[in-house]
Amino acid sequence: MSYTPLTEASVVTYVRRTGVATELFGDVTDIVAQDLADGNVNLVFRVYSASDPVRKSVIVKQALPYARAVGKEFKMPLDRTRIETEVLRLQAQFAPDQVPKVFHFDEEMHLVMMEDLNQHRIVRTGLIDHIRYPKFAKDIGIFVARTLFYTSDLYLSSEEKKGMVVKFMNPGLCKVTEDLVFTHPFSNHPENRVNPLLSRHVRELRSNTALVAKVNHYKTLFMTQAQALIHGDLHTGSIMVNQDETKVIDPEFAFFGPMGFDLGALIGNLALSYVSQECHIQDAAERVSYQKWLLDTISQIWHTFEDEFLALWNDHAVDWKNGQFQKEYVWRLLQETAGFGGTKMMRRIIGLAHVADMESIADENARAKCESLALNIGSSWVMASGSIRHIDDLLSMMTQARPSIGDDSHD
Amino acid sequence: MSYTPLTEASVVTYVRRTGVATELFGDVTDIVAQDLADGNVNLVFRVYSASDPVRKSVIVKQALPYARAVGKEFKMPLDRTRIETEVLRLQAQFAPDQVPKVFHFDEEMHLVMMEDLNQHRIVRTGLIDHIRYPKFAKDIGIFVARTLFYTSDLYLSSEEKKGMVVKFMNPGLCKVTEDLVFTHPFSNHPENRVNPLLSRHVRELRSNTALVAKVNHYKTLFMTQAQALIHGDLHTGSIMVNQDETKVIDPEFAFFGPMGFDLGALIGNLALSYVSQECHIQDAAERVSYQKWLLDTISQIWHTFEDEFLALWNDHAVDWKNGQFQKEYVWRLLQETAGFGGTKMMRRIIGLAHVADMESIADENARAKCESLALNIGSSWVMASGSIRHIDDLLSMMTQARPSIGDDSHD
Repeated sequence: MSYTPLTEASVVTYVRRTGVATELFGDVTDIVAQDLADGNVNLVFRVYSASDPVRKSVIVKQALPYARAVGKEFKMPLDRTRIETEVLRLQAQFAPDQVPKVFHFDEEMHLVMMEDLNQHRIVRTGLIDHIRYPKFAKDIGIFVARTLFYTSDLYLSSEEKKGMVVKFMNPGLCKVTEDLVFTHPFSNHPENRVNPLLSRHVRELRSNTALVAKVNHYKTLFMTQAQALIHGDLHTGSIMVNQDETKVIDPEFAFFGPMGFDLGALIGNLALSYVSQECHIQDAAERVSYQKWLLDTISQIWHTFEDEFLALWNDHAVDWKNGQFQKEYVWRLLQETAGFGGTKMMRRIIGLAHVADMESIADENARAKCESLALNIGSSWVMASGSIRHIDDLLSMMTQARPSIGDDSHD
Repeated sequence: MSYTPLTEASVVTYVRRTGVATELFGDVTDIVAQDLADGNVNLVFRVYSASDPVRKSVIVKQALPYARAVGKEFKMPLDRTRIETEVLRLQAQFAPDQVPKVFHFDEEMHLVMMEDLNQHRIVRTGLIDHIRYPKFAKDIGIFVARTLFYTSDLYLSSEEKKGMVVKFMNPGLCKVTEDLVFTHPFSNHPENRVNPLLSRHVRELRSNTALVAKVNHYKTLFMTQAQALIHGDLHTGSIMVNQDETKVIDPEFAFFGPMGFDLGALIGNLALSYVSQECHIQDAAERVSYQKWLLDTISQIWHTFEDEFLALWNDHAVDWKNGQFQKEYVWRLLQETAGFGGTKMMRRIIGLAHVADMESIADENARAKCESLALNIGSSWVMASGSIRHIDDLLSMMTQARPSIGDDSHD
């Protein structure tokens, strides 16, 4: 079938015709579709059995040649669906419980059919509602450690890894990140969106040569350092959770890049949630307690990652058996995590794509204060990144930072 | 024509049949061939007109599926001839006077026919004879600056560069470097060759955990950092010179790797020459003077490189316009140059492949002393690499280093 964007009607016909339909649904006569319309760049349908909508349900995700959230002029490569599918299948080998199952892939339609995680919720929205997820930190720490270690030169043969670098070369989506994370936010690009109350703070930040130099450095790492097959977009909107499980979705930005970019996306977005709680939780005691849970979550993610990564290294690596190198390697990872994490925090405040954690704060002044605080944390992470030795250094910068504008700012 | 290794007889027939033969030789009846037999891993013939052997002459280089210098069990990928040819053609766009002209490429025969540089000499052997080359430092500094800048993300579009990374993926020859430069020399690998008089020094060096950790770090950079299309084997045996010209040959190890690897190969091998002059030049005043020329050459190469690289950057880069970033970028390049250069110096003393600069020293004790000095310089470069800020730092380490064994060592 040649490429045609599907509709609620045509996706049902499409699913009925796939080989796996009977296996998944039994009776395929009563299936219906719902356009979830929640992707920035894809069509996403839930296709389910009217008689058993929870258990008999799949997600159909189809790439569009442009970003819906921006407009038809913002081109997106269709090949990303192949990359997403191959990454999900590969990650299922290392972390089978933490990715949705893939049922079907259609190369011509740029479409993938996968498990419907209808018993899970996007982490970001759960955090906005200040829910605690007891298994999240450990699950995601292990997921990141495994997916990165098993696709790195520490595990793979030199030749095998280089073959995978070619297979997962993802220039179109890398360019989106290069522009929207590292370049546009730190210049006066017309696509940037900034809270007007922040304009002085943002002007100062963009003219901070030392800071922009470090962001440029992290951009070169993003563009040159083929360290492991990273998820490439591992913020809290790409992870689904409940009280028992953690699932990582949407790896269409995956490519061989710096490990710190995934870790940084994760903890940077948790830091954004931490900051946003200043507005989301009115009760001071409850706010302090939930913010402490977020700090502990960041710490536990890092420690779980480090322990699992080093355990895999000690068990499986053939070369690279040098304790001092191992120690310095992990330090460097933490430093790059800080650099990427801080950059990603800032771009969510001063670039095109913002986060619901902040956008859901109705009061403009209160939001500006949170956004200013987030900029200061992000900037301090980036500036200190070269000398960080412990995850606690990042947590201290979070708790000690203050916004650059007050409640009554009219800047 | 399907792949058959050529002989002195068959290469003449082959050349006569190529489309460019008449253009190059006019009369093709009197051409003859000479097996130069000087490649480690290739067949190399000079094919020339008997009536005008200097002006009418070409080099025919054909890949063998194994390394002649080691044995048939040491496999080498034949694809390297395509890579060499494409690199020479590409470099000719940026530095036309500094690479041999390519006349003909035969994909099936894994053969390239190129300009015969019979008026030039390999730099390494010229240095052993303590000849000064007045244009060398400037020429090679500019060559390295241009070939690296024009193939980096500083110049190319993101997408174009990623396409070139794939085209120049060179896993077979990268693996040779990974093993022979970074891994085997720093372990007790059976292929290593070490002067027995050095055994204590080498034992100490291999058990120096901090040093081996740093070498491991540079190995990860070599394996992950796709910064520019590097030559990949830019020692003094890959450069031909005379008093007027400088030509860079043999880019079959080329791939997208760290820029510092080319710069380090270059200055590391000049440092090996510097050390070896202790034995090659008996007259003290002459030795001091020639060694000073070598130090000046290293310094001039670096400064020429830096000036040309920054001039290209300022003229051509679209993004990356930040003075502080530029300064830190060049510091980092110098630091990685020191790390790679020091590693390459050491591997030429304690690994499989040695250099004529040292091997031509007949006296075993004198050679051991030079080799020990080279190890100490290489090791000091690697250990200090993280904090180096100026090329003079590397020169000071050269002049201040002492060998770890005396003239009367019987270790």
